[in-house]
Amino acid sequence: MDNIYNLSNKVPSHKDFIDTTDFDQAEILDIVKTAVIVRDFIKSGGTLDSLYHKNLAMLFEQKSTRTRVSFEVAMSQLGGHALNLAPGAIQLGAHETIEDTAQVLGRMCDLLMARVDRHESVVALAKYAKIPVINGMSDYNHPTQEMGDIITILDNLDPEKKWNDVKVVFVGDCTQVCASLMMITTKLGMNFVHYGPEHKLLSEDFQKIGRKNCEKYGGSVTVTSDRDCLKGADFVYTDVWYGLYDKETPKEVYMKDFYPTFQVNDDLMNATENPNCKFMHCLPANRNEEVTDSVMDGPNSICFDQAENRLTAQRGLVLYFGHVAQVTLDEIKTKKEGK
Amino acid sequence: MDNIYNLSNKVPSHKDFIDTTDFDQAEILDIVKTAVIVRDFIKSGGTLDSLYHKNLAMLFEQKSTRTRVSFEVAMSQLGGHALNLAPGAIQLGAHETIEDTAQVLGRMCDLLMARVDRHESVVALAKYAKIPVINGMSDYNHPTQEMGDIITILDNLDPEKKWNDVKVVFVGDCTQVCASLMMITTKLGMNFVHYGPEHKLLSEDFQKIGRKNCEKYGGSVTVTSDRDCLKGADFVYTDVWYGLYDKETPKEVYMKDFYPTFQVNDDLMNATENPNCKFMHCLPANRNEEVTDSVMDGPNSICFDQAENRLTAQRGLVLYFGHVAQVTLDEIKTKKEGK
Amino acid sequence: MDNIYNLSNKVPSHKDFIDTTDFDQAEILDIVKTAVIVRDFIKSGGTLDSLYHKNLAMLFEQKSTRTRVSFEVAMSQLGGHALNLAPGAIQLGAHETIEDTAQVLGRMCDLLMARVDRHESVVALAKYAKIPVINGMSDYNHPTQEMGDIITILDNLDPEKKWNDVKVVFVGDCTQVCASLMMITTKLGMNFVHYGPEHKLLSEDFQKIGRKNCEKYGGSVTVTSDRDCLKGADFVYTDVWYGLYDKETPKEVYMKDFYPTFQVNDDLMNATENPNCKFMHCLPANRNEEVTDSVMDGPNSICFDQAENRLTAQRGLVLYFGHVAQVTLDEIKTKKEGK
Repeated sequence: MDNIYNLSNKVPSHKDFIDTTDFDQAEILDIVKTAVIVRDFIKSGGTLDSLYHKNLAMLFEQKSTRTRVSFEVAMSQLGGHALNLAPGAIQLGAHETIEDTAQVLGRMCDLLMARVDRHESVVALAKYAKIPVINGMSDYNHPTQEMGDIITILDNLDPEKKWNDVKVVFVGDCTQVCASLMMITTKLGMNFVHYGPEHKLLSEDFQKIGRKNCEKYGGSVTVTSDRDCLKGADFVYTDVWYGLYDKETPKEVYMKDFYPTFQVNDDLMNATENPNCKFMHCLPANRNEEVTDSVMDGPNSICFDQAENRLTAQRGLVLYFGHVAQVTLDEIKTKKEGK
Repeated sequence: MDNIYNLSNKVPSHKDFIDTTDFDQAEILDIVKTAVIVRDFIKSGGTLDSLYHKNLAMLFEQKSTRTRVSFEVAMSQLGGHALNLAPGAIQLGAHETIEDTAQVLGRMCDLLMARVDRHESVVALAKYAKIPVINGMSDYNHPTQEMGDIITILDNLDPEKKWNDVKVVFVGDCTQVCASLMMITTKLGMNFVHYGPEHKLLSEDFQKIGRKNCEKYGGSVTVTSDRDCLKGADFVYTDVWYGLYDKETPKEVYMKDFYPTFQVNDDLMNATENPNCKFMHCLPANRNEEVTDSVMDGPNSICFDQAENRLTAQRGLVLYFGHVAQVTLDEIKTKKEGK
Repeated sequence: MDNIYNLSNKVPSHKDFIDTTDFDQAEILDIVKTAVIVRDFIKSGGTLDSLYHKNLAMLFEQKSTRTRVSFEVAMSQLGGHALNLAPGAIQLGAHETIEDTAQVLGRMCDLLMARVDRHESVVALAKYAKIPVINGMSDYNHPTQEMGDIITILDNLDPEKKWNDVKVVFVGDCTQVCASLMMITTKLGMNFVHYGPEHKLLSEDFQKIGRKNCEKYGGSVTVTSDRDCLKGADFVYTDVWYGLYDKETPKEVYMKDFYPTFQVNDDLMNATENPNCKFMHCLPANRNEEVTDSVMDGPNSICFDQAENRLTAQRGLVLYFGHVAQVTLDEIKTKKEGK
């Protein structure tokens, strides 16, 4: 009880947050803990200035609503500022190499978050910028989404239930969000299932990453087109079917692949045989394609809580990688005890 | 004298500021009072942090200079932050429904301001976002402009003059600014005139809104092509002739409609027979079309004071709809008495 | 020693920072002093709020990375806020005259910085805005770059060396950065050389400005295609060869003009016969065109320090033209003595 405010690892093992696979379970839980304690403190009216006058550069090669707004609000609520370098404002690799842009931004700002077309770009930014770099989504993964999602899952879990007994089913296309969900759920030892059409299932390479987590923390990875996999799911999660922003699949193609079998509707939710099974979606949703209104607006939908937890996660991430997570928790502890 | 800092209604009757018609005169005057007291306090060197760490999302479907800058500066001066979601950054109703965007922004931000192509969009945002939504102009009305304008009118009014004796003439096209000016002047019981070509006069539906105000608060609504209406005007107001941003009228068409009869020039100002008649314009102006340089840069022009009062108004609005207007006035009162 | 924190001129002789030629050496050194003391104070962990709740409008007619990020971070670190009016957000001279835009921004903001296509635009903004206007680069000059560059030069100078003995060689195209470097180095009485192809050398008009500085402060201006000019250089500086953003020269044309003679490579650096000669570049660089990787990433390259000093300079400029330079230095002095 006394150590609820104590992090296990006070210094991140990696300067950058590019891939949750770089971090062990204890570190991931430290970020979660920081995020949740800060969220609850702010919700109860507390104020913090842990990132006073600190500046986060947000570099977008692709449009973003949730990632951009959540990071900008997170910085503002922590006394700092986020600079929005919108798509086109800086052309990575055009008039200047990525490496030079990284060096320059690293000289002026305190943190850098980048949403990139290609994963190697955010890896290069991290290598050349001397400041911490956060991956705000690439074509490979979406680790800040992972953090918001795992917080939402933990928020909605029966505290009696062991993580090794939790089942999370992702339905549909093997997007980077699908891969990311596998990485974070198995990091906590949960049972992850990808339910989709044969030629759209998570690759063997991705599955290996999840299986390595399971060896260490328990849980399992299943990839299948068999509808029986839904049985006993605690969470059903889906994402859009049109694929990556810069190479979207035409509607007639993806509908043939996924519709109607992989639409999350009442029928699919019933197939879980769990009346408490929650519905998740990273958003934006293409309503009545991958999910029906009835599910998305139904009592078991937690997709808007999930959106709000993007903000929860970003605060945790900027505090943790900005090296002020522990001092922030200490401050909250002192303020709460002072009351 | 003691209650100069007391608002009549401490809680807004509506969560959102979509249309001044939703509010009674007392509420409008509470916003005006808040705006003016805060302006004078800041101008005299006072500082406030009433919206400390609060975040306003500004959603623009159309470009904006005045609305954007005034809201962003207002939030900054009150200790908060404004996020600029520029045209194209979020495509309302594209990859995501307006309703979902509203829900998401409502989970992350404290206030939402939107400039929209179609009025129904800002109505939908207000319905689905749980946070206060401010209409930053639609194709129907421009209520934040109304607030800046009424502050400017009151600033420039002989304090002896009764509001029921004030005459405000809008010259030219029945834009949403024209309609809005009618709504706010009649809300204070003033006499509003729209002077324009027959086929460009305010619709009967709009006039009804104004007449309803007059029944309650006095004043009158006149819509006419008769130049005699200018006589006795206290304020002459005009707007551009090219119409709505996304369906602009070609120059040869609008010049035929309005030029030269409805140009605000020295001749037209003289027709008021009031040497103190003030000139107003919401800006941007198409100089030497709807108004001549001589009038716009003349001694009776208050159009740049009016621009500055956009900022005055926005501070009042974010404080009022952010539910911190009364505490802010209390704080100013205390600080002033402390001196 | 006692007066290290005292500025010689406490009030800028001009409201605006359009051209360093408007200012004498003492004023330039006051800005440098402010910038350097504030940099060192912030680097040592100090915090300032000298521009608390003040708002800088940044108006860009052209894309910018360094100028935009450095001003935005500078304002944030000093307790203020910068508004990013990106290219296209406000179209100078389109639906509104530059003069009217200047008047409006001047009513809402505290400072204005503008990067413009044509120098006359920033001159007009300064004339009509009642607030201080800072030139963030035009087709004529780049004075905020000058300030960062001179700080970098002074940072890297043997303190024993007299300014009149310092030699700075700009290699390549007579860009506005080349002209600006001449203006600022001669303002401090240094020896400036432009080494480039005959038809790409600094114009006689520009040289006159430098020579006028030399009359007052010593130093010299040389413009030549003779490689011997490199001998004894303390600093070698270059810029891209493709010219101005909105009228870029095709690669086959500029390569013929400059390559390989005017490429800054190890050979050219050796021609200075000064093993300590530093390499500078305003960035972005077109690597292996105007400069080789070996020089740019070599031990004598200070181009990333130079990029960081853009931020150093902007802080000095907004403090100086915001009329809070002296009070800021006083505050730092008090805080340091208090320790």
